[in-house]
Amino acid sequence: MKEWKAEVITVGTELLLGQIVNTNVAWVSEKLADNGISVYYHQVVGDNLNRVKDVFEIAHHRSNIIFVTGGLGPTDDDLTREAFQEISGIKIIEDEQTMKDIEAYFRKRNLEMTPNNRKQAAVFEGSTVFKNPVGIAPGILVDYDDRIWIFMPGVPREMKALTEEQILPYFKKKNMLEDSIYSRVLRFIGIGEAQIEHELKDIIHEQTNPTIAPLAVEGEVSLRLTAKAKTEAEANTMFDQIEDKVIARVGEFLYGYNEMTIRQRVYELLLNQQLTLASAESLTGGAFSAEIVQNDGASKVFKGGAVVYHEQAKENVLQVDSSIIDEYGTVSKECAIHMAKQVASLYGSDIGISFTGVAGSVIENQSHGTVFICIYDKINGKAITEKFVFQGNRSAIIQRTVKKGLELLYKHLNK
Amino acid sequence: MKEWKAEVITVGTELLLGQIVNTNVAWVSEKLADNGISVYYHQVVGDNLNRVKDVFEIAHHRSNIIFVTGGLGPTDDDLTREAFQEISGIKIIEDEQTMKDIEAYFRKRNLEMTPNNRKQAAVFEGSTVFKNPVGIAPGILVDYDDRIWIFMPGVPREMKALTEEQILPYFKKKNMLEDSIYSRVLRFIGIGEAQIEHELKDIIHEQTNPTIAPLAVEGEVSLRLTAKAKTEAEANTMFDQIEDKVIARVGEFLYGYNEMTIRQRVYELLLNQQLTLASAESLTGGAFSAEIVQNDGASKVFKGGAVVYHEQAKENVLQVDSSIIDEYGTVSKECAIHMAKQVASLYGSDIGISFTGVAGSVIENQSHGTVFICIYDKINGKAITEKFVFQGNRSAIIQRTVKKGLELLYKHLNK
Repeated sequence: MKEWKAEVITVGTELLLGQIVNTNVAWVSEKLADNGISVYYHQVVGDNLNRVKDVFEIAHHRSNIIFVTGGLGPTDDDLTREAFQEISGIKIIEDEQTMKDIEAYFRKRNLEMTPNNRKQAAVFEGSTVFKNPVGIAPGILVDYDDRIWIFMPGVPREMKALTEEQILPYFKKKNMLEDSIYSRVLRFIGIGEAQIEHELKDIIHEQTNPTIAPLAVEGEVSLRLTAKAKTEAEANTMFDQIEDKVIARVGEFLYGYNEMTIRQRVYELLLNQQLTLASAESLTGGAFSAEIVQNDGASKVFKGGAVVYHEQAKENVLQVDSSIIDEYGTVSKECAIHMAKQVASLYGSDIGISFTGVAGSVIENQSHGTVFICIYDKINGKAITEKFVFQGNRSAIIQRTVKKGLELLYKHLNK
Repeated sequence: MKEWKAEVITVGTELLLGQIVNTNVAWVSEKLADNGISVYYHQVVGDNLNRVKDVFEIAHHRSNIIFVTGGLGPTDDDLTREAFQEISGIKIIEDEQTMKDIEAYFRKRNLEMTPNNRKQAAVFEGSTVFKNPVGIAPGILVDYDDRIWIFMPGVPREMKALTEEQILPYFKKKNMLEDSIYSRVLRFIGIGEAQIEHELKDIIHEQTNPTIAPLAVEGEVSLRLTAKAKTEAEANTMFDQIEDKVIARVGEFLYGYNEMTIRQRVYELLLNQQLTLASAESLTGGAFSAEIVQNDGASKVFKGGAVVYHEQAKENVLQVDSSIIDEYGTVSKECAIHMAKQVASLYGSDIGISFTGVAGSVIENQSHGTVFICIYDKINGKAITEKFVFQGNRSAIIQRTVKKGLELLYKHLNK
């Protein structure tokens, strides 16, 4: 099987101006990696014919499978087709089926078709054309000079649908995918990247197959194990052996595998234990509950939450005892406990979690970043409270607080 | 003044695996654009010496100011220094001051310094070294072969602090910045990208200075005007002229300028009109309130919110009349109005906003994506309700709903 050296090119001046973040390239790269295609380079270039041509030539020289997103739209600054035509000499033609699809699209919506929409039916002579499942512009695959070039629109939803529903199935059908690269991701919370690297240094260095790559993202660490193996079973045996060694050292921090998130893990634990949750949020203003409801089926475990941003709301809605606020302040262990108990009672949940703290200016002499989180377990009547002092701006503190809340809930439920 | 042709290179295999999104490059690019430095290319390459060297050589050939982030850390796969040494022949030396700073850093924290931390004091002979305001690894600037190379750590917080507090001030001091490029961003909501382009097609095409670039992001559209001018006043006159033409056609959708967000604009309007807000959220689960509290000083206008995810919570917490739920269902105009009124009453706010709908499976025969948003204005006693059917997955529907809620609030307040 051919060894793929892939490269992803994004065409669009808005990326060079930093107006948008290039999420497409991350998504495509991960999909390719998951299918055993190694990506060696990313390039971004603006809507300028000569520069796009230069970038295409660099890619053609060093890579043998090249994904291009962007620059296929109907407007004059969409130059991807012209650039590839100029470097390859391959003619641009109008694809009949695509043209019919575009006409049908406009007819169905009672929209007038403008002449520049015809441009989206332009493909390369001899290319394979993939119908866009969610938009107009098709995907185009060209086999040229022993390289495979793939062109897709830059709209993330269209690019993703084309990749998953058309391009990858095509690769499989044509036996283009190396089917012997496997990976397993171990997900940890409550341990830093430096610490996990320190604990596992020798294992990480000794390993060649599978390889072990640590990565820290937003208060969590993951280890990606990547193996070349003849079968999935063989890969799993290799992963199990490494995982045993890893667990012996840092197992207490492992919360899940692969696509699992801490928010899903907490959801699962609540569901399995048939427990319900409600939240009382001050500084996080609903960010915690917004995270919990990202779980499909969240209503099975999540009753709801009270965002008591204003002190008055703490008293009126949560009926927090004003004597507690007077004596200890709203940013206090005592207030956190009271909030957690009150919200569990108000929403009729088994567990109440509360967040109070300072994400803006100083409140009640508590400095910026001071946060109290309390988990109240109605079943055993116990309340666990922890105090943190987080660094960063308002948004960073809110994010860290939410993540820490999930971590504490996980620890509480995973006993 | 020299015309800068900038390029940003990110070194790190994790980016090629798609494990993280490259937010650094967007941030740096925007900073450079704001300072009149045009970025023509982005490249990403993994932690492999030969490939990093190749990428550096490409950049050196076509650009004259090159920003490199990543690959400067203490571990063996950090190869940025070695690659640049090999292409330039410039010696790597240990920077005395940085070494002292690193030692002090570890001493202060009572941490043991490991030998590989010394590596972070390695700079290039003759380079300008910028102290990292928030970390260990310094920024390094090398003037080599008529190009300027800048190396920074890949940790976003460190990269940003170095750029803002060290690199850009250095550019200014050395008169490296073209000070005659200005921009103004006009922000619109309630109009699509295609429609705004259609309305302004002739203006956009005729313009060369300032140029006008439309961009759609998450339910909003912005127009970036970019002008070359001798003074800011001259640029502003040019912007004002274009803006008058734009406003004559699509002025009703303009909500703000430059860094303004719709969430800030809503906050300002509430503040100026001395109005307070409370939210009742079902399908969005707190995502709306979490957005509102991202405003500094949110507590001045935001009383709080009730996340009534579970039907029971709608009755217990918001005291939604069960007869309304029985007759119309929770996903209904009537329930939305009732929720908005109840939350305004419960939290003692002037305005109540409510969200109810379906972001998961079908509820009460309402299909996926059906959403009701209601704004209740206690002062005039009026409730405005709108129904939407959004496309996309759970998370997309929640996001669209929150944005639409802000849009409706903006329209309501901006009369």
